[in-house]
Amino acid sequence: MNVEWVGEALEKLRKRRPLVHNITNFVVMNTTANALLAIGASPVMAHAEEELEEMIKIADAVVINIGTLDRQWISSMEKAVKIAGELEKPIVLDPVGAGATILRTKTALKLLESGNVSILRGNFGEISALLGEHGKTRGVDSITYEEGAAKRLAFRAAEEFGLVAAVTGETDYVSDGKRIYAIENGTPMLGRVTGTGCMVTAITGAFVAVDVEKPLMAAVSALVVFGIAAEKANEEAEYPGSFHVKLYDWLYRIDGELINKRAKVRKVEP
Amino acid sequence: MNVEWVGEALEKLRKRRPLVHNITNFVVMNTTANALLAIGASPVMAHAEEELEEMIKIADAVVINIGTLDRQWISSMEKAVKIAGELEKPIVLDPVGAGATILRTKTALKLLESGNVSILRGNFGEISALLGEHGKTRGVDSITYEEGAAKRLAFRAAEEFGLVAAVTGETDYVSDGKRIYAIENGTPMLGRVTGTGCMVTAITGAFVAVDVEKPLMAAVSALVVFGIAAEKANEEAEYPGSFHVKLYDWLYRIDGELINKRAKVRKVEP
Amino acid sequence: MNVEWVGEALEKLRKRRPLVHNITNFVVMNTTANALLAIGASPVMAHAEEELEEMIKIADAVVINIGTLDRQWISSMEKAVKIAGELEKPIVLDPVGAGATILRTKTALKLLESGNVSILRGNFGEISALLGEHGKTRGVDSITYEEGAAKRLAFRAAEEFGLVAAVTGETDYVSDGKRIYAIENGTPMLGRVTGTGCMVTAITGAFVAVDVEKPLMAAVSALVVFGIAAEKANEEAEYPGSFHVKLYDWLYRIDGELINKRAKVRKVEP
Repeated sequence: MNVEWVGEALEKLRKRRPLVHNITNFVVMNTTANALLAIGASPVMAHAEEELEEMIKIADAVVINIGTLDRQWISSMEKAVKIAGELEKPIVLDPVGAGATILRTKTALKLLESGNVSILRGNFGEISALLGEHGKTRGVDSITYEEGAAKRLAFRAAEEFGLVAAVTGETDYVSDGKRIYAIENGTPMLGRVTGTGCMVTAITGAFVAVDVEKPLMAAVSALVVFGIAAEKANEEAEYPGSFHVKLYDWLYRIDGELINKRAKVRKVEP
Repeated sequence: MNVEWVGEALEKLRKRRPLVHNITNFVVMNTTANALLAIGASPVMAHAEEELEEMIKIADAVVINIGTLDRQWISSMEKAVKIAGELEKPIVLDPVGAGATILRTKTALKLLESGNVSILRGNFGEISALLGEHGKTRGVDSITYEEGAAKRLAFRAAEEFGLVAAVTGETDYVSDGKRIYAIENGTPMLGRVTGTGCMVTAITGAFVAVDVEKPLMAAVSALVVFGIAAEKANEEAEYPGSFHVKLYDWLYRIDGELINKRAKVRKVEP
Repeated sequence: MNVEWVGEALEKLRKRRPLVHNITNFVVMNTTANALLAIGASPVMAHAEEELEEMIKIADAVVINIGTLDRQWISSMEKAVKIAGELEKPIVLDPVGAGATILRTKTALKLLESGNVSILRGNFGEISALLGEHGKTRGVDSITYEEGAAKRLAFRAAEEFGLVAAVTGETDYVSDGKRIYAIENGTPMLGRVTGTGCMVTAITGAFVAVDVEKPLMAAVSALVVFGIAAEKANEEAEYPGSFHVKLYDWLYRIDGELINKRAKVRKVEP
């Protein structure tokens, strides 16, 4: 399909340099800040409740990532989601480790249930855990992993939570509960560097920041751009340390022409 | 001008391997520790109030960076500034995000008002926010951004706070309230890697650690050395991931000869 | 000596991809996660007390690193050591900075005195501080640094604490209180990158995770593999930024053949 709109979104992002406010985990703070800078956005990290309102006022999007939780940070995240909702700033949520512990599942669900999250980006296990737990009180059947399950999961999560859901894996599926896109860019080497999922979540924040009315397109754009950058990085570097370095290089270098040439994205039926 | 003293300061730093104690933000802890190791200093990071006194006793300088604040960390920073003052250890302060939120402005001002900070290193927005807020209660006119404003800001901040102020930007200005130096080393690529300002602050701590009586020279040395290392890194690597890697390489490789060849530093009139 | 078992342990590790749960310091979280991924393990970082039990249940080993302590994290570490002990999961402890402050020495000792730690990995100063302090209440003579002291320290720490002690330095010594191994792989460049000690501790966790009955062999394997990877990285990159990148590459690339060719490990008499 024609993906010129992805390159255009990237150009717009680079022109506007949106300020992306992150409340994220300790492991990837440096990584996601550098990914945002490389792609052309401006990152800020702040978690003190006293400054959240001022920070979110000047931010163009808020990215919440629950990778290293504790009580204080959960409280900050809840407050940030509330404020961002009031200020109508788009929120992207990365439910790292949902399903692995009750704390993570519950925290992610509570943030989702605010109704303020625009885009939910996670892997199959995380999103299905959230949908399953949510379903317990809502009568939703659980989804088991199988061929086609990721696609249905994205669709159902989008419907149930009323947002755009991006379920990433070998093939990524993004849905707003009506349409579904499948993206097949990327490389297995992404699994050998910590925080690559968190990076794509942060970059999703940068895309939705410059086009708040189009969260579905933002999520697709981020996955396509990140996936292609990773492919190019992997072509230049076959081991994880060097690959990681080249990934930032290609987030900086990627442009519309490269996207048009390499994008593997298609609309699929629910 | 003759800058042989910069190379000599660097040689001294490498011989003594000063221990630089950092209370810094989560995003750049790894980055600044690696910058300190690359240049030839020894970093330590510690924020527990219970161990601050012991840590500062063995440290040669203390670097405080307010990039990711919360109540607990503010309390640690205040205690560290008090202890370092009593023990006569030089303190370098990086007021990351001052002006963006009241919490950051107030925290930086409170640390400054201890009278124990030797060097304040920030960008135009940060330093002018601090001077403006400080001025509200002291009758100081605010400074608006214009040609020459950064130079005057460095001078005024130095005067007002009674320290060495380093205002970094396209041209860096460093002043002790009497003299002013302008440094023009560096590359725009520094803006594409997170924590490069925090790195130069940490390196400033390493320079002042080995010559506590000369904070003005320490701040100038750090900016010259870091700027040249960045230029060399950018000559070898034109994209941000690779540039970041080469930056550490050049902090390790830079020597007096390279400094003499490349330094763009001059004394300017107030 | 024949070291084919090291290559076999590495192969086993890569086949099983053990989940290593880390409660570690802010500076190296990203670094150790990437080291674990590069070698072939799966890292998880979690410190909230509410989720420790669930996390440790699914983990194959627990790595505790006290590099940036505070009350909340100490409490988490104590709880994790207790839970891991009950669940019979191997624990590796890195007592970063023990001896430098009372807080660190005491915290490490308290964790050790649980009796649940399998492997203690630190430098000469850290381990001797722990043994000395422990000795104060147990009648152990202190050990001063001298030729052969590191070997005796490893042996004595192993005996006293009832675990495997790995004392790393120019030559690394690993002992279980009966046998002692000396390892001479590595490069001084490791001292120019932050968290390389923490990396080898984390990798030790990955090795013991797949062979819980053999903590001595796990500690030796980790030091040999990490040391050789560092040597190869240093052959390709002579400066710290590039060296750091290549270190991950070689953790990924190293195999039994390379280990057999390069391992410098020998059994020594107590």
